[in-house]
Amino acid sequence: MRQDQSGTSHGQGELALLAGIRQRAAGAASKGHKNGLRLGIGDDCALLTLRAGEELAVTTDLSIAGSHFRLDWHPPEAVGHRVLTRGLSDLAAMGARPVAAFLSLGLPRSLATAAGRRAGVSRRWIERFLDGYLALAETHNTPLAGGDLAESTVAVADIVLIGAVPRGRALLRSGARPGDLLYVTGALGGASAGLARLAELASTAHPNPPRIPKKLEALLAPHFYPQPRIAQGLRLQRRGLASAAIDLSDGLSTDLTHLCEESGVAAEVDADSLPIHPEATLDQALHGGEDYELLFTAPSAARAPRSIAGVSVTCIGRILKTRAGRPALILITQQGRQPLKPQGWEHFC
Amino acid sequence: MRQDQSGTSHGQGELALLAGIRQRAAGAASKGHKNGLRLGIGDDCALLTLRAGEELAVTTDLSIAGSHFRLDWHPPEAVGHRVLTRGLSDLAAMGARPVAAFLSLGLPRSLATAAGRRAGVSRRWIERFLDGYLALAETHNTPLAGGDLAESTVAVADIVLIGAVPRGRALLRSGARPGDLLYVTGALGGASAGLARLAELASTAHPNPPRIPKKLEALLAPHFYPQPRIAQGLRLQRRGLASAAIDLSDGLSTDLTHLCEESGVAAEVDADSLPIHPEATLDQALHGGEDYELLFTAPSAARAPRSIAGVSVTCIGRILKTRAGRPALILITQQGRQPLKPQGWEHFC
Repeated sequence: MRQDQSGTSHGQGELALLAGIRQRAAGAASKGHKNGLRLGIGDDCALLTLRAGEELAVTTDLSIAGSHFRLDWHPPEAVGHRVLTRGLSDLAAMGARPVAAFLSLGLPRSLATAAGRRAGVSRRWIERFLDGYLALAETHNTPLAGGDLAESTVAVADIVLIGAVPRGRALLRSGARPGDLLYVTGALGGASAGLARLAELASTAHPNPPRIPKKLEALLAPHFYPQPRIAQGLRLQRRGLASAAIDLSDGLSTDLTHLCEESGVAAEVDADSLPIHPEATLDQALHGGEDYELLFTAPSAARAPRSIAGVSVTCIGRILKTRAGRPALILITQQGRQPLKPQGWEHFC
Repeated sequence: MRQDQSGTSHGQGELALLAGIRQRAAGAASKGHKNGLRLGIGDDCALLTLRAGEELAVTTDLSIAGSHFRLDWHPPEAVGHRVLTRGLSDLAAMGARPVAAFLSLGLPRSLATAAGRRAGVSRRWIERFLDGYLALAETHNTPLAGGDLAESTVAVADIVLIGAVPRGRALLRSGARPGDLLYVTGALGGASAGLARLAELASTAHPNPPRIPKKLEALLAPHFYPQPRIAQGLRLQRRGLASAAIDLSDGLSTDLTHLCEESGVAAEVDADSLPIHPEATLDQALHGGEDYELLFTAPSAARAPRSIAGVSVTCIGRILKTRAGRPALILITQQGRQPLKPQGWEHFC
């Protein structure tokens, strides 16, 4: 999918791989003309056209083996799906429609070539990665318009999503006001609970990556195949319902902190009202990341729907003024009110 | 520079690093409003607005330590400069004006933190990388509008450039016609010659990375600090002079092959007319990559200028019809005509 955009030469093996990706991307790209993709893979740049009155939304997300996925835990299809979900979810949080995606892959030779096939593994890792990636791309009508490909000792995937939104209508993090109500789509903690099950499974003596028992597939689905809420974000934007929005990638406590910081407000969350995934704990619902649900605020006078495009919408709290000496986030439980702290983890220290 | 766009949480160390990058990017971003950058770092996506009648040009380029640069050879400033050059050069080849850039960085902890400082190294690697990156970004008025940051065992940088060009006016690889003349900007082989000097220098007993003697600085400049030809690409596009264009990232023999393939034509190159860099050999001028000059074609009736915005323009050959049994590229020397083969290198085989 490298567009021969520059930098490094590539030989017959890489060219064949690129040709294969280009061919697989071509089907989606032909449909992409409706989106605004005028020229896809094959030139120095891709060319895209917006509709009248639209502006661009652009996001990039870097996924690295060992940090964001594990080659010995995650099926390649799930890695491809998750990489694209990260980008699409950012568009959803802005209320943007997807126009096109760009994917840069750095891969160890063993994942990109037939030589990397192991016993029982009949297809190359990269082919299965693309299966997962392209299936989700088709669901959301997001053509692969370009990218880059290089050899790397560690597997990395950088996803770029280009979206479009009517000018001045994007959902921002900064629009929440005291008195607004706080909502989430779907259920919380499912991805985190699935990850915990996966870690458990991988720690016992199983093949590497572990074979997933049928009965576990449903439990792992929220972690392996989270669904970006594109339709829900678009509906919120078109109805002018949300005053602010963010996607739940880092976990409710962390992402709500971001939203409050950008809006200059505080918030309280009712623990009893949280739509906790049936397999998850309260802790996983509060702090577990990667659910990719939308968190949004709306004026209390607005009538938020109970569901949008088949996904539930739940009121979980409200926006407050910031006040000196009061924590920015408060969790209300039957035991009373307590500070809710963002629980991220240290990347560089 | 990560926009808190999703996926991973990050703690105080990373947040401080991000805040520092955001602050450094902010100066350029404030000027970026003129370009069309409406909302930069800090939300789920950046927002960009094009001018009436424009379309988007998008390119991504992945640079990986060990493949595209070496931590023990390249000063961090040069790595930052080169990463951005790869993206800007793709915009130049389309005749697009830069609107904004997005940078995803995966870095070993030692390069991102104060703990990575070694004796005599007073600033973090990432700070010096940004020095080189931001200096070039300022030259070309290209605000850093977002990106991502993660820990990685190998240093990787993925650069995304968003450009704009009047609709239907982009310079494509596919427009060359038999009879057109073939031109290059600047001189060829300088980057390759510089790299050869650098390899020589690094192989002798020097500190790591090697200290560059003053007298060598000028020789290494074409390799360390190649200049993307934004002004030249824009001029060609605005004058409607070029029938096709590509940037010389992989080397003349390889990039001319791409241009001929996309245009469905053949070409011949006059060795005697090549603007060979004073330090380079004919071989380096023909096959050495990373000069980032523009290669373009124009109808023979067009009057190509001798120079554009202070950079020389040289006619080096002509476009031919493809003919069965004749090589796609021919080199004409005083010894006669010979096939000119693209000399790339094998990435995945």
